[in-house]
Amino acid sequence: MASLAAAADAAASSAGGGGARVDKEVDFANYFCTYSYLYHQKEMLCDPVRMDAYHSAVFRNAHHFRGKVVLDVGTGSGILAIWSAQAGAKKVYAVEATNMAEHARELARANDVADIVEVIQGSMEDVVLPEKVDVIISEWMGYFLLRESMFDSVICARDRWLKPDGVMYPSHARMWLAPIRSGLGDKKMEGFDIAMHDWNHFVADTVSYYGVNMNVLTKAYRAENEKYYLKSSIWNNLRPNQVIGQAAIVKEIDCLTATVDEIQEVRAQVTMPISEDMTRLAALAGWFDVHFRGSKQNPAAQEVELSTAPDENGGTHWGQQVFLLTPPLKVNEGDTVKVSFTMVRSKENRRLMDLEFTYELHESSGKQLPAITTKFYLD
Amino acid sequence: MASLAAAADAAASSAGGGGARVDKEVDFANYFCTYSYLYHQKEMLCDPVRMDAYHSAVFRNAHHFRGKVVLDVGTGSGILAIWSAQAGAKKVYAVEATNMAEHARELARANDVADIVEVIQGSMEDVVLPEKVDVIISEWMGYFLLRESMFDSVICARDRWLKPDGVMYPSHARMWLAPIRSGLGDKKMEGFDIAMHDWNHFVADTVSYYGVNMNVLTKAYRAENEKYYLKSSIWNNLRPNQVIGQAAIVKEIDCLTATVDEIQEVRAQVTMPISEDMTRLAALAGWFDVHFRGSKQNPAAQEVELSTAPDENGGTHWGQQVFLLTPPLKVNEGDTVKVSFTMVRSKENRRLMDLEFTYELHESSGKQLPAITTKFYLD
Repeated sequence: MASLAAAADAAASSAGGGGARVDKEVDFANYFCTYSYLYHQKEMLCDPVRMDAYHSAVFRNAHHFRGKVVLDVGTGSGILAIWSAQAGAKKVYAVEATNMAEHARELARANDVADIVEVIQGSMEDVVLPEKVDVIISEWMGYFLLRESMFDSVICARDRWLKPDGVMYPSHARMWLAPIRSGLGDKKMEGFDIAMHDWNHFVADTVSYYGVNMNVLTKAYRAENEKYYLKSSIWNNLRPNQVIGQAAIVKEIDCLTATVDEIQEVRAQVTMPISEDMTRLAALAGWFDVHFRGSKQNPAAQEVELSTAPDENGGTHWGQQVFLLTPPLKVNEGDTVKVSFTMVRSKENRRLMDLEFTYELHESSGKQLPAITTKFYLD
Repeated sequence: MASLAAAADAAASSAGGGGARVDKEVDFANYFCTYSYLYHQKEMLCDPVRMDAYHSAVFRNAHHFRGKVVLDVGTGSGILAIWSAQAGAKKVYAVEATNMAEHARELARANDVADIVEVIQGSMEDVVLPEKVDVIISEWMGYFLLRESMFDSVICARDRWLKPDGVMYPSHARMWLAPIRSGLGDKKMEGFDIAMHDWNHFVADTVSYYGVNMNVLTKAYRAENEKYYLKSSIWNNLRPNQVIGQAAIVKEIDCLTATVDEIQEVRAQVTMPISEDMTRLAALAGWFDVHFRGSKQNPAAQEVELSTAPDENGGTHWGQQVFLLTPPLKVNEGDTVKVSFTMVRSKENRRLMDLEFTYELHESSGKQLPAITTKFYLD
């Protein structure tokens, strides 16, 4: 045998367990585990876009924190909790499911805020606080915003522990979709072709050397590799000039009022005008931004935005998610792409997403190409 | 957030679950998942050393299969079950825990042995067969033989279903340890140094830009990276000339009589003479071989060996496991290395192994270097 290291998504997408029902230990094996590594915490702490946005949001709006009670959902190494204390919070509850909680405690001690920051190890759903809080701060965003489904825990925390006039950090979130050009698809298609070519040789060799005909599995092998190479979204930090048309918002979330029902299934119909001539629509790219605006009763003194859109300066650790259109479409300025978009949670693992796109090119000439429907997996 | 794909070993080594106690779904998420991919089945089916050994073992000893009842433990894509049928078995029970079972069924049908090969999806521990079997065949070997702890399931199958005069395929297994020279340690040490150098910059930047001193976590980060770079065994296919002394057997298993107790903890003391002058003892390497000898009552007509030792012709998908000695030791012909070796199952995941080596160099001059004790992780 000898099982090579299986990617978490492999673990995830096969984790027997039944959809909605969540086995805590399976969830830990598939998800939380990653966050118990300092290496991974550092990845996030080294993302300047992420760090600067949260740092500015807290310290430019210190009036939201001064003398207030704060809850940090999924504190990790504790940075947001410590900033909240440094900004003047009188008490910060920092909840963390993994053993990273112990490091957060050390860090709070070492930064002289141990009297303010109380680290509680447990899942947010189980934690009981002695009081309601004025502010909930959390860095809950996954790839394309909703991967990981961590916002569920933030909603749960909000409904149980936020005061009626409390403030959410961040306060708003948006999902974006845009038409892009990219060479990624060519590479992936080549990888897929090589894999299938290789498989065909394998089938021929196995029957001639070992007398077993594997050809009946070719269809399943093709499907497995199609999913891997062509139907799994690709992490990438795109350059702005790869965006060849107008990006569209597919989802807006008010963190103060959003419900789990509202994010469990995202549906949108958008029309995106192409703004470049004689180019290739090779993929659709998804990203998100969040805003720190405070609330109506307690507006931010200075609004802060955290955007993961394609950026000259290199982008973020979230990058963008690229969904390949195979084959790519020749497009021109004035054409429009109409996309119906659905994203639901994977049945096998609620933290992963199954997407379906139906896209339709309307050429400026008036010609309309037949609609194409395809599934993608955000693992 | 955004959790990058966590390696299965990460998932495994943090999978909350309590040691001995095995949660089926956690075990699936951490382990079986890998085997539900045709890609991974192909990896194993493309290992000619593995394939040739089992193929020869079955067809050169067809008398063990002709007209007999066979059980294949962990049949995967079903190849061993199909061979058993082709060799003349009257009935083959092929047990597989993952959905690969369905593919095994298709494959049996496509190769005209569906009437003989009965694929049963389930874990061996739960499966109930209608009869006892004459032969148990299984490819259960993990890295350094025992990783994955799959032999437990074979023992369970044997004790419940093998006839008193039944035969095990393979019948015997051995674990080997050898002194080697290698440049791997230098690369890993460099990676470790870069990681720590990078961390120190990160600590400095974080305190100056963001006002939080992370230095208290340096010790934990060092330990995490030491484990990752220096204390995790490294998969490698070594060249025979990298073995600089006499290999030693650290464990011998008779598959017909072995018990779980006997493999749960492996202890050995071996002395390995160095056979090369003026070289570097950079690591100890572990590998295994298995033999197909039949049994005393039913000996093999032709014994077959499957060895994963360093090989000019490229080795196997198991490779060897390299345990780095940092720093390496200067050694000469005539020196001897004395090694006390312990391998136990990891508390967090019984399928992974925690090892401890105490090694001691006796130079031919009579000079004896102080013993060094170090832990390793076979994840």
